[in-house]
This record gives sequence, C-alpha cells and structure tokens, in this order.
Amino acid sequence: MALLAAIDALRTKKIPLAVNLKVIFEGEEEAGSSNLQRTLELHKNLLGADLLITADGPVHQSGRPLVFFGNRGDIGIGITVFGPVRALHSGHYGNWAPNPAMELSRLLASMKDADGRVLIDGYYDDVTPLGDAEKKALAELPINDADLERELGIAKPEGGGKKLVELIMQPSLNIRGLRSAYVGEQAQNIVPDRAEASLDARLVRGEDPQQKFDQIALFIRKQGFYVIDREPTMEERRTYPRIAKVINEGGYRASRTPMDLPVSKKVVEVVEGAAGPAVKMPTLGGTAPMYIFEELGLPVIGVPIVNADNHQHSSDENLQLGHFWRGMEIYGAILADLNW
Amino acid sequence: MALLAAIDALRTKKIPLAVNLKVIFEGEEEAGSSNLQRTLELHKNLLGADLLITADGPVHQSGRPLVFFGNRGDIGIGITVFGPVRALHSGHYGNWAPNPAMELSRLLASMKDADGRVLIDGYYDDVTPLGDAEKKALAELPINDADLERELGIAKPEGGGKKLVELIMQPSLNIRGLRSAYVGEQAQNIVPDRAEASLDARLVRGEDPQQKFDQIALFIRKQGFYVIDREPTMEERRTYPRIAKVINEGGYRASRTPMDLPVSKKVVEVVEGAAGPAVKMPTLGGTAPMYIFEELGLPVIGVPIVNADNHQHSSDENLQLGHFWRGMEIYGAILADLNW
Repeated sequence: MALLAAIDALRTKKIPLAVNLKVIFEGEEEAGSSNLQRTLELHKNLLGADLLITADGPVHQSGRPLVFFGNRGDIGIGITVFGPVRALHSGHYGNWAPNPAMELSRLLASMKDADGRVLIDGYYDDVTPLGDAEKKALAELPINDADLERELGIAKPEGGGKKLVELIMQPSLNIRGLRSAYVGEQAQNIVPDRAEASLDARLVRGEDPQQKFDQIALFIRKQGFYVIDREPTMEERRTYPRIAKVINEGGYRASRTPMDLPVSKKVVEVVEGAAGPAVKMPTLGGTAPMYIFEELGLPVIGVPIVNADNHQHSSDENLQLGHFWRGMEIYGAILADLNW
Repeated sequence: MALLAAIDALRTKKIPLAVNLKVIFEGEEEAGSSNLQRTLELHKNLLGADLLITADGPVHQSGRPLVFFGNRGDIGIGITVFGPVRALHSGHYGNWAPNPAMELSRLLASMKDADGRVLIDGYYDDVTPLGDAEKKALAELPINDADLERELGIAKPEGGGKKLVELIMQPSLNIRGLRSAYVGEQAQNIVPDRAEASLDARLVRGEDPQQKFDQIALFIRKQGFYVIDREPTMEERRTYPRIAKVINEGGYRASRTPMDLPVSKKVVEVVEGAAGPAVKMPTLGGTAPMYIFEELGLPVIGVPIVNADNHQHSSDENLQLGHFWRGMEIYGAILADLNW
C-alpha cells in the first residue's frame, strides 16, 4: 500500500519515475510461501530486471531505517535413532537394551562445542568471506546484545564472545525439537524404541544445501551410526549397533548482494536522503528464496519499512502509522531518484 | 483363583494346612497400585506373619517354575533445562541464544559411558554385595540373551559384555522420555525455550531412594547447572548460564530376601517337589513395594504361576490352563507342606 500510495503521489506531482517498475505481491508469507518458489521459477521470463527490492521484514529495533543485502539459506534435517524393535520394560531390560534417547543425546552433544561452534568437518569451509564493505558495515552496526540478553533472560550467549550480528554471518546448526516416548505425568518406565531430533542449519553465501546435508550425514556416519533414509529392517537392527535415519527435509541456499556495487551504494544514498541515517546489514539471519532472483542476475536489496515490534507472524500484527508514512517517502524517493 | 481352588482341594481331601494363612488381594496392579502402599501402611497391625509369598509376575520363559527373592526399587526423575524465556526465531538468534535441547543432550550424554556404566559419583557404592547363595543362583540361571537380542533386534547390548541377569543386580539409569518443541512435520525453525527429559533409576538392595536422587542432583550441579525444583525467575535466568529444574517424582527402595534362609530353601524344595526343577532368581528387574513387608520383619518370596507370554499389562492378557493347574498344585503343596 505504501508503494501504491507513493506512485499515486508521484503521479499527482507529475514527477516521472526514474525506473521501469515490476511488482510481485506475495500473499502467503505467513503460510510458509509454499507457492512462491514454484511461481517464480515458472515465470522466470517475466522477471528480467536490473534490481529487486524486497520489503520483507521490519526496520532496525532503534527505529532507524534498514537496508539489507542478503538472506541466509536453510535446510531441515530429521534424525531418528533406533533402540529395540519395541519399547521395553525398563526394570527387566534397562542397562541391557541400548537406549536410543541416550544414543541421540551423545550424537547431538558431539556436534557442537561448549561455545556453540559446530564440530562437523568442513562446516565453515565453504563460507564466502565478507568483503571490505561488508566488514565495515558490520563494524558500524548498532549493538544491542545486552538489551536482548536482559529481555530474553540469557546469562551467557553462545558464540565465544562474538556479537549476534557477527554470528549470523556464519552457518548455524540448531536443534529445533526433540522427542522420545513421554515425559512428565505421561512418562512410562520403558526403554523407548526410538528417539527423534529435528535440526535446522542456516546457510550463508557460498554454501550448497545438498553439500551441507551430506557433511552432516557423513559426520553422523563417522560417529558410528549406520545411516539410512527409511526405517531399518530387522536384519539391519541385528547387524548395526547404532542406526540413524537421516532425512534431508529440503531448503535452499543463501543470497547476498555485494554492498559495494554502484546500485547498492545508490539505494543506501536514496533511502538515507529520504529518511536519515540507515542501518546497513550484509545479511539478515532469516531465510527467503532470493537466490531465484540472483540466478536471474538481479542484485537483491531489502528495504523494509515496518516497525520492529510489529508482532510479525503473531497476534496483533501491526504497522505504526509513522512507519507507514515514512515508507511512502522512502519508496517514492527510490522510484523518483534511483539511477546508477 | 488357583490359591482358592487349592484350599478347596485340601479341604475336600481333609489335608490340614501346615501354616496359618492371611491373604492380600491387590486389584490395582495395572492401574499403578496407587492405593496398595497406603493400605498396607494403614493396616500394618494386620500383617504380622512369618513369610510373605507374592504371586506377581510370570514364570521363566523356558516354562520352568520360578522362585524369586527380591524386587528392585525405583525412582522417577524429571529434568527440565531452560533456554531463552520464549522460543526464538532460529535464523535471527540461532548460534547466539543458548539451545536447551543441546544443553540437555550434553548433560544426558555425560551420565553414562559407551558401555552403559553410570558415571555419577558413588552410583554403585551403596549396593549390598550378593551372598554366596545368590552368586550360585545367578551362575545357574538359564541364559537366553542371544534369543532376546534376535527377537528385539539388538546388535549389541549395553553392559560391556555382562549378561542381562547380572545387569539387573545393579542399579540402572534409564532415559524414559525426551521432549523439546516439535519434530517431523510439526518442526518449527526455533530455538526452543526448554527441553525436558524423564529418567527412571532402578535401585537394588542397600540403596536409599532419597540418597539416589541427591546423587543425581549433585551430579547435575557439578556439570555446571543451577539446580532448582521450580520454574526459574527472570533474575535467575539472567544470572545462571545453565539452569535445570530437577524433580524427585518419588519411588521406593528394593527388597531382597537372602536365599540361604531356612524358609527360602524350604519354599524352593516344596515348589520343586510339586512342579520340578525351578529357576531361582535373587531379584527380578521390576519393582514392587515389598519393602513394606520387609520392614515388618517378613521374608518375601515370589512364587508366580502364569506363563511368560501372558501379555502382562497389554491386550489379550492370558493364563494358559496348564499353568493354572500347575499353580493349584504349587500353592496346594506350599499350604500343606511348608514348615521350617
């Protein structure tokens, strides 16, 4: 709406557009964008352009405008470790039947050190180093780690002292869920037959999703597991002491536009001309399928306008009116002044 | 019913009972026996006797009659490890916000070695050593580990080569359940706010339930956790890098009657006279509150009669008629011939 209002305003004032404009509206972001990737790939012929500007996400927590130049990629990994073929009485079989929840705990614990650094061979090898412009931008970023720690009840973050904005420039490995039998009042005195973990790995520029999955699967193999992508047969259960089903749940690569391109500098200049000093981020921590535009040869730059406390993806999602007005001004300035 | 039929038969034949008889019927075993312990404690004055025979459980898998002399005790332990005060976006905060599922995995992995031996200080210290009669009985027990491994799909049991019947003479530590956020199709890209594990520890003779819990809680503290028995406050979250809520879910101690008591030898002699060579076990792996009778000064001996494949606690629970008839004979012989 801010973009359409900006076009209306420019027309009313008879200010010509400095650019030819194509608009993509994505209405499924909160439902997982399940059709976006397919739609973009189906209509690549319509997407030729010199630049993509995405409005996704909020501005910086300080209220300053934000210009960002990339998104991390992401893959999901499902791991199931198998115990006895059926859950067993822990009194009759505990200390004898291997416990899959313990095997899974050992496996997960072996993946990262106490500072949160991933111990999987080659996990950081494919990362494209940051350029000088990106390093400079990182150094200039406002740091609010202490505020976040206080708000979130965190006594000591991971990362061995590195700041949050530095850490999201690296690939991550996160346990997003665990499940084995029951806990609390539902707990039963059994040796469970299986234990499951769900992981997500965020990828940065230079990393291939399939290679990342292969790295992780190889690591699990090196920890002594027989790795398969389905339930084990009885014969396999009798043969291999440790069995893990490891599933590649899919994902896609990161994207990042160099900050020292003429168009990158120009977008920052126009945004700052319209709305004052901007926060410039080499990449966001989150994920969006911007690689599709990259493959078409388009630089991708993010210029979000909504307030940071907008309750994104939650109840009472909101847009402050001041941010809405400033958004019109920013998009108006881009449409009128962006040439490079 | 086998006991009542045995009494009827003895009366019909005018065979006098060798013992005075008191009978306790427990009808809640499959519902957790929640009233048994309380009822027994309330009516201790009625329970004076020279011997308790329990019929709980099945005979040996070989079909041979079983006489057992103890049960393990048990405690339940609930562990919750805390992360950020609310689940966080794993793209924006992963690699920075501590992950409670990873902290929990590390903690659990530190509790046992690769052979399943518990690494908690003093875990095996209070175990009352087996006497000569118990060692001899263990050595004579039929071994069916290989059959069990084949049936249950186990390539390599825990225990560093020890047999199942030896392992149930030791205290155990078992992860009976894990939970943190979601896995599989429900998985979300978050850093969870908490991760939970439910453990059970089987106790053997000599071990105190509260001391066992204290050992485990102390171990968790030594692993760097601030241990509490409730949700942490915001102030505690900001102060302690690792916080674990550790709950003692209760339990009771093991019981074991010496196998070389005159009454122990006599029960075996009578059972074998009625039903042939018996399997003699110093203790079962499972748990029953027999310590209450021990405290009253009664030896407790188990003489079960039902077939091993009786689907105990499950659907199609059954008693083979042959075992029912043999049970009448065994209980009839005990009532008529047991004197020592």
